[in-house]
Amino acid sequence: VKIKSTDYNGAAAIVSPLWGVIENAIAEMPLRLKASDQAGLQGNMIFDPVGTNSALKEALVAAGWHPKVTIPSAYQCLGTDVDFEKDGVILEVQFSNYPFLLNNVIRTYLFSCQRVAFNGRVPKALIVITKCKVFPASNSTLYFEQGKNQLDILAASNVAPFPIRLVGLSEDAGSKVPCICKMYHNPRYSRTVVDEKPMTCAIQSAGARARFVLE
Amino acid sequence: VKIKSTDYNGAAAIVSPLWGVIENAIAEMPLRLKASDQAGLQGNMIFDPVGTNSALKEALVAAGWHPKVTIPSAYQCLGTDVDFEKDGVILEVQFSNYPFLLNNVIRTYLFSCQRVAFNGRVPKALIVITKCKVFPASNSTLYFEQGKNQLDILAASNVAPFPIRLVGLSEDAGSKVPCICKMYHNPRYSRTVVDEKPMTCAIQSAGARARFVLE
Repeated sequence: VKIKSTDYNGAAAIVSPLWGVIENAIAEMPLRLKASDQAGLQGNMIFDPVGTNSALKEALVAAGWHPKVTIPSAYQCLGTDVDFEKDGVILEVQFSNYPFLLNNVIRTYLFSCQRVAFNGRVPKALIVITKCKVFPASNSTLYFEQGKNQLDILAASNVAPFPIRLVGLSEDAGSKVPCICKMYHNPRYSRTVVDEKPMTCAIQSAGARARFVLE
Repeated sequence: VKIKSTDYNGAAAIVSPLWGVIENAIAEMPLRLKASDQAGLQGNMIFDPVGTNSALKEALVAAGWHPKVTIPSAYQCLGTDVDFEKDGVILEVQFSNYPFLLNNVIRTYLFSCQRVAFNGRVPKALIVITKCKVFPASNSTLYFEQGKNQLDILAASNVAPFPIRLVGLSEDAGSKVPCICKMYHNPRYSRTVVDEKPMTCAIQSAGARARFVLE
C-alpha cells in the first residue's frame, strides 16, 4: 500500500527514528478489501478497516510498539485506550467516522499538557494513520484529505499546537495491486471470516474516489 | 424531561436571553423511548434520539432558531451543517457517539477564531444538548457527565476557551413520567414508525444507569 503524509508542529524530527519501520510495513502490506453492505453500495468492494487494522497491529507490535494502552481513569471520558505507544509517540489507526480525528488530536494534546504518561512517558508526538479519499469506504469515515483540511484549520488558529504526522494509505488510480479480499458470513454483524484470499485489484479511476475491481 | 447544565467561559451571560424558551420546551417534552436492537439489550426500552431530535427541532424552530445551517465549503471537513443558530449562538443536539462533542466544540471555536459567519453572525457561544447517564441508551453514545468531564479537562488546559453551555436531559430515578414509545418495523434499518403511543414510564434505579419500565 502507498503512503501520503503531512506534518504539523515539528513532527518530522520527533517521529523520524520510528518512521522507517512503519513506512516499510505499510509498503509491504497488501490492500485489504471487503464487500460493502451499505445501502447503495451492496456488493461493491470497499476498504476493509478490520483487516487493515490487524495487519498494521501485527507489524507495529513486531517493531516494539505497545498496543491498546489504557488511558488513566480520570481521562477515560475521552476514550478507554490509545491504539499504540512507543518512545513517547502515540499512534492511532483511525478508520472510524470523521469526528474521531479531533478526539484523538485534542486528547493527545491534553495528555501532554497535563503530563499524563503512557508506559511511563508523556506523549511528545502523535501519528494518525487513515486512508485516502481514493479508497471506496463506508460512509462518513475519515479520510486523509479531510483530516488534512481539519488539521490545517486547527493550525491556522494555533489550537492544540502539537507535533502530528497524519498518514494516508493510498493506491494510484490506474494501477493493479495485490489485495486480500475478505468475505463475512453476515457482513454487518459477523466477524466470522468465510473466505479470505490473495487476489489482484485494479484501481479504476472514477472521479475523486476510485473503484476497486477484482481480477 | 428534566435538565442538568453546566457553563464554561462566561456562557451564562450570552445564552440567558435565549434560555427560557429552551428550558420550557424541554420541561414540557415527554420522554421519548424506543426498543433497543443492540446485542445484549434487545427488547429493553432505551432513549429515542430520533424522536427527541424531532421534538426539540419543532420547539426550537417555533422559537425562531434556524435549523441545519450549512457550514461554508472551506470548513465542511468538520461537518456539513450546524444543527441550529440564533443571534450568534450555535446549538447542537448531540446524541451520537462521544467524539462528536470535541468535534462540535473545537469547530465552533475555530469558526469564531476565523470569523466564519452563520446567517451573517460569527458564533459567540455554543449550547450542546445531550442526555444524562441515567438514561439507558445505545453503546458509546455521548452522555452529559462524560461531556462535562471532557470540557473540564479542556478548561483545565485552557484549550478552546469559548462560551459553552452543556445541557443534559434527565429524569429522577424512582419517578414516573409521561413518555412516547416508538416502535419501528425493523429497528436497525427502518425509520417507518409502526406504533407511537403516550404511556407512563417508571424510571427504576439500577446503578448509575436507570431502567425504563413501561406501565
